[in-house]
Amino acid sequence: MKKTVIAISRQVGSGGRTIGRKTAEKLGYACYDRELIAQIAKDSGFTDTEILEMADDSPRKTKLGYMLTEGRDIYGMTLSDHLWQSQIRVIRRLADQGPCVLVGRCADYLLHDRENCLKVFIHAGDDVRKKRLIEVHGDDPKNIDRELKNMDRRRRVHYELYTAQDWGDADNYDLCLDSGRLGIEKCADLIAEAVHRS
Amino acid sequence: MKKTVIAISRQVGSGGRTIGRKTAEKLGYACYDRELIAQIAKDSGFTDTEILEMADDSPRKTKLGYMLTEGRDIYGMTLSDHLWQSQIRVIRRLADQGPCVLVGRCADYLLHDRENCLKVFIHAGDDVRKKRLIEVHGDDPKNIDRELKNMDRRRRVHYELYTAQDWGDADNYDLCLDSGRLGIEKCADLIAEAVHRS
Repeated sequence: MKKTVIAISRQVGSGGRTIGRKTAEKLGYACYDRELIAQIAKDSGFTDTEILEMADDSPRKTKLGYMLTEGRDIYGMTLSDHLWQSQIRVIRRLADQGPCVLVGRCADYLLHDRENCLKVFIHAGDDVRKKRLIEVHGDDPKNIDRELKNMDRRRRVHYELYTAQDWGDADNYDLCLDSGRLGIEKCADLIAEAVHRS
Repeated sequence: MKKTVIAISRQVGSGGRTIGRKTAEKLGYACYDRELIAQIAKDSGFTDTEILEMADDSPRKTKLGYMLTEGRDIYGMTLSDHLWQSQIRVIRRLADQGPCVLVGRCADYLLHDRENCLKVFIHAGDDVRKKRLIEVHGDDPKNIDRELKNMDRRRRVHYELYTAQDWGDADNYDLCLDSGRLGIEKCADLIAEAVHRS
């Protein structure tokens, strides 16, 4: 069955967001990345962007982060749990609307039962990712080792908490690509190629 | 750098051997799979094929298996350790000789420092693999659940023992493909495509 939905998970600094956008351009698909946050905000009623950014796999940890995981409502649900419910609704709705590329937000897991969804994982070596975070994202070289470690840990913990799957386990994906070894442009080409051939 | 050596690791029943052969045909590369065993036999001086098959990630476990891991020489090395040494020599030599596809035998790990080596992992869902083992390899459907579990465990344990890496972790490979979802032919196409673009 033709893969009309591409769900991309990515390691911090692997260029997964750029690869998603390039893939969408090549295929003529819509691309949802940061746009997902706006949609989740609308669905959930939360409007604080910082909270929303943090509620998924955002790399930054601030005091606000605790609000998401500490306070519980009468059903025992945290803010983070509520946002997860919105995330499920938004991602499934977008996947129903038409051909698209979805970056992050555990879309691979949320759509794993859809035959038309190609699940992709983008990763790269630590040195490649540090370089990208410094040069492209403007991160501070002095703290980059600690930062990368923290960001990896947070993203993994969030994914494993909500999906009960191992982060980065090839079994969870149709296609895993090392963007450091293959190159950003080539990763997008290979994903598009996998779709063309599906 | 052009990828002139393709090292393919594969789950039991994922069709990795067939994908290796098809990839080699598409690229005009040599393909070493069972031929590796003959070369390791020559290097090591061992001639019992059953022992050699078992010394890597062979799915079958018989009494002979214990010979490989129980007896130790004066240096504390088992037969399995000696065969591992031969395996290192043979695989590195073949990779030096010219463009080739190497299937199994931890070649991905043994060549991980080579810039010209494309490391590939082929996997598939349990149902797909059971079907293939029954239909293509003639395995007994009655025992297939237990057999697959045993074969997976043995392959994983061997890989992790000698490489100290997690079996099936996307980080260890340049490219991971689900042959059940993408199809055997398409996997070979994508590997060849990754090489052409490298």
